[in-house]
Amino acid sequence: MTYCVGMVLDEGLIFASDSRTNAGVDHVATFRKMNVIALPGERQIVLLNAGNLATTQSVVSLLKSRLSHDAANLHTVSSLYQAAELVGHTVREVIARDGDGQTQSQGVDYGCSFLVGGQIRGEPPRLFQVYPQGNFIEATPDTPYLQIGEAKYGKPIIDRVIRHDTPLAQAIKCTLISFDSTIRSNLSVGLPIDLLWQQRDDFDFAPRHRVTEDDPYFLALRQGWGEGLRSVFGQLPDALWFKHGDSE
Amino acid sequence: MTYCVGMVLDEGLIFASDSRTNAGVDHVATFRKMNVIALPGERQIVLLNAGNLATTQSVVSLLKSRLSHDAANLHTVSSLYQAAELVGHTVREVIARDGDGQTQSQGVDYGCSFLVGGQIRGEPPRLFQVYPQGNFIEATPDTPYLQIGEAKYGKPIIDRVIRHDTPLAQAIKCTLISFDSTIRSNLSVGLPIDLLWQQRDDFDFAPRHRVTEDDPYFLALRQGWGEGLRSVFGQLPDALWFKHGDSE
Repeated sequence: MTYCVGMVLDEGLIFASDSRTNAGVDHVATFRKMNVIALPGERQIVLLNAGNLATTQSVVSLLKSRLSHDAANLHTVSSLYQAAELVGHTVREVIARDGDGQTQSQGVDYGCSFLVGGQIRGEPPRLFQVYPQGNFIEATPDTPYLQIGEAKYGKPIIDRVIRHDTPLAQAIKCTLISFDSTIRSNLSVGLPIDLLWQQRDDFDFAPRHRVTEDDPYFLALRQGWGEGLRSVFGQLPDALWFKHGDSE
Repeated sequence: MTYCVGMVLDEGLIFASDSRTNAGVDHVATFRKMNVIALPGERQIVLLNAGNLATTQSVVSLLKSRLSHDAANLHTVSSLYQAAELVGHTVREVIARDGDGQTQSQGVDYGCSFLVGGQIRGEPPRLFQVYPQGNFIEATPDTPYLQIGEAKYGKPIIDRVIRHDTPLAQAIKCTLISFDSTIRSNLSVGLPIDLLWQQRDDFDFAPRHRVTEDDPYFLALRQGWGEGLRSVFGQLPDALWFKHGDSE
């Protein structure tokens, strides 16, 4: 399994991915699920992937190996929309080759999902989710985040906190809490977490941070959040109708 | 969809179920998913159900109509284990009749899940989860709660708060917060929530409460929890490495 989140906010973009892959609980490995394709001063495109590792690795390898080709590639597309289209096209190509065009074939799930986001000079920051079928949706100010993989455990805190005008620093904090909830509940999502953030209109600098098991900030956040939740819970009153119930 | 939770704690048992059913988003209805079969002074058995409504209604109808039969029924079984076995047997019977023994048939999912819990005099309180295949598991002091239906959104708060020695009043508070998180994230889980709690060794009195949209306690809990979460979030520090990132 996998958990990846992307956010497109007024201040810029955030990307985060876990790094655990598994084919059965006795076949676990660490793979980076974040890839960056950049032209300094001009564009920065981030890919996060979930799903079949053979498919996602092939898609990324093909996209990278074609950067020097004449045909449209991630260095030449003129919009993030075209970047998402190209990723979707490559997903279809790999699934056609490996799964005879079926995402489910011979008992194997060849499917995968991608988050494709970033900024190309001349456009605002944009964020897309590409489905296993190769089609895609775009995040908007109403719904400024997208998730792939094991999305449910970490969704409530994002829904409560994230608006398009949330500052990047707060959104990073929220993202890490969302990962903590997911990692606690699903063994197949694991540290380290790869984080990347990108200020709007800054085409030269996209800081990254790899959150490992002994990351002091993540440990403090995890502890502070857990204690804070239990404290809020403890302060809320018990039900008045406890002990007697209704008259049904 | 559905969300149901059962807990077996030192003080007794808690059961909670939402009441929304849907066959497509344009075919939504309210059905109670909680059924109680009791013999005052002797036994109290609670059934919560998720999954195909035709299957679950038939299972409950058959179990109730057979209470006066000579064969083993929920008034005569001598343990909760046998009650779970009987529910599982009846699930298999209905799926054999309606789905030719297949939980998935002709594009329809005939499957369902049940939580079966309560207390029969001579035993401690017990809680079981019956799968669509009719087999079942039992909750233990290590894992004192079971969920069926849309379980993921509401699981993190239960994992953080509930131990076998959590008092009933606190467990009810936690259950309602778990429902609030689920209802916020999944439209197909909806109010009212049916709640029932049962003190250990009290065979005569199992208070119930139906939480409706204007329930003052639920509204206060929902507001207090949301504000509390945002306050804890606001107090946690931003990452020290924000602005510069790592040196990768």
